[in-house]
Amino acid sequence: MHPLPDSYSTGAEARRAIRAGRLRGDTSSVATGHVQANLAIVPQRWAPDFLTYCMRNPKPCPLLGVSEPGQVTLAAVAADLDLRRDVPGYRVWRDGELEREVDDLLALWQPDWVTFAIGCSFSFEQALIAHGIGVRNIEQQVNVSMYVTNIPTEAAGPFGGPLVVTMRPMLPADAIRAVQITSRFPKVHGAPVHIGDPGRIGIRDLARPDFGDAVEIREGELPVFWACGVTPQMAIRQARLPLCVTHIPGHMLVTDLLNSELEFQ
Amino acid sequence: MHPLPDSYSTGAEARRAIRAGRLRGDTSSVATGHVQANLAIVPQRWAPDFLTYCMRNPKPCPLLGVSEPGQVTLAAVAADLDLRRDVPGYRVWRDGELEREVDDLLALWQPDWVTFAIGCSFSFEQALIAHGIGVRNIEQQVNVSMYVTNIPTEAAGPFGGPLVVTMRPMLPADAIRAVQITSRFPKVHGAPVHIGDPGRIGIRDLARPDFGDAVEIREGELPVFWACGVTPQMAIRQARLPLCVTHIPGHMLVTDLLNSELEFQ
Repeated sequence: MHPLPDSYSTGAEARRAIRAGRLRGDTSSVATGHVQANLAIVPQRWAPDFLTYCMRNPKPCPLLGVSEPGQVTLAAVAADLDLRRDVPGYRVWRDGELEREVDDLLALWQPDWVTFAIGCSFSFEQALIAHGIGVRNIEQQVNVSMYVTNIPTEAAGPFGGPLVVTMRPMLPADAIRAVQITSRFPKVHGAPVHIGDPGRIGIRDLARPDFGDAVEIREGELPVFWACGVTPQMAIRQARLPLCVTHIPGHMLVTDLLNSELEFQ
Repeated sequence: MHPLPDSYSTGAEARRAIRAGRLRGDTSSVATGHVQANLAIVPQRWAPDFLTYCMRNPKPCPLLGVSEPGQVTLAAVAADLDLRRDVPGYRVWRDGELEREVDDLLALWQPDWVTFAIGCSFSFEQALIAHGIGVRNIEQQVNVSMYVTNIPTEAAGPFGGPLVVTMRPMLPADAIRAVQITSRFPKVHGAPVHIGDPGRIGIRDLARPDFGDAVEIREGELPVFWACGVTPQMAIRQARLPLCVTHIPGHMLVTDLLNSELEFQ
């Protein structure tokens, strides 16, 4: 975790700071109120299959924008944007394996790369908090708990694999309210996919998440599970593309969109 | 249970048949698509307190209409309506005790009676089924399971007491969808009040409901609990009014309103 100053009030400010190397690490407290996005960059040859994969799995992969091949801009999510430099950490994948993490893509950028911006639960966490519902991972200042489930996604070309979920424990009345609130935000995973028994979706032990950190689950609380933007990273790994790029989890693309703009979209 | 022919396509038709004595008993299959209402008739002296009780407890007591004192009409819910004869069964309460059940109120009617029409879960059950979600009590052709909880309602004057809930067992994904669907219908109890552990709201044994019938709960299903229109009957009993009237549970006032009209109201 690299806590960052909450001194960037807009996405544009945050991106300029990242581009200049003044801002690195986790973006969870950056430009509050602005939509942050998961990133997937794949060669044009596989872009139609990946697009189809996202369309077939809208809960884990809600698309906010898709770039033109080779373009480092993505007007659907941000005006002044350089996709090679404006994300505070990139993962480079070769043949389905993580090769390395880099600060920018200036040396790596390919003319056939297509960039996908995918909604992130940061947006609905802010909505939950605004409605007075505690979000345990934020209260405990850790990453959200993520689990690989036994729920298959619908495959497209080489892309497929299991659904990944995030989990937030809540009292039942808050879980009901959370269904209502997150239902309004289909572009950032929408309503939960499961409530209650983790075993039913193939999760053996909530105390041992596959990604992120474990959080405390208190007396009377139900685990509430949402589709997670790490799902497409699993699909990209499974596809074993010769070369592709994602963001480092938690190191998101900060956009110009407002979370409130996504309501009912 | 007195199954009735589903041969009344409008509320007006159903009410005319009831008024003529051709239709008696449970109204669950009558005038499908039309709102059915719980009924509470109290003397004018207690009407302000009962109105306040309903306003303070909108989930169990969502008001569809309130009559003028002594009037046997209630234009907010139905055009051609005689409140003394158009409900297929009335309960007469004296000093908080059930005195008897009657077919009409022609002999009993008082010039100071105020009638309250309160939303009923029949409306949202139809919405659930329309969205492909099974409603176990309908599938098993029994009354819905009702339980007295340890959740207090907010009192007003002599009216108070515990919240009564209905329970429908559902797989978690259906429970999430049911929260979404019933949230759209605040006038018929809206979203659930609880999901999961019955003990947490004071219910000892789901197999032994306080009213209605037990239903099968299958592997992997969660009990989902909604506020229930029997709650105001409990409040009326607790108030020990010298004389008041309700409908017989399941023997509802069939209105002219369409269930679809109540969406988002």
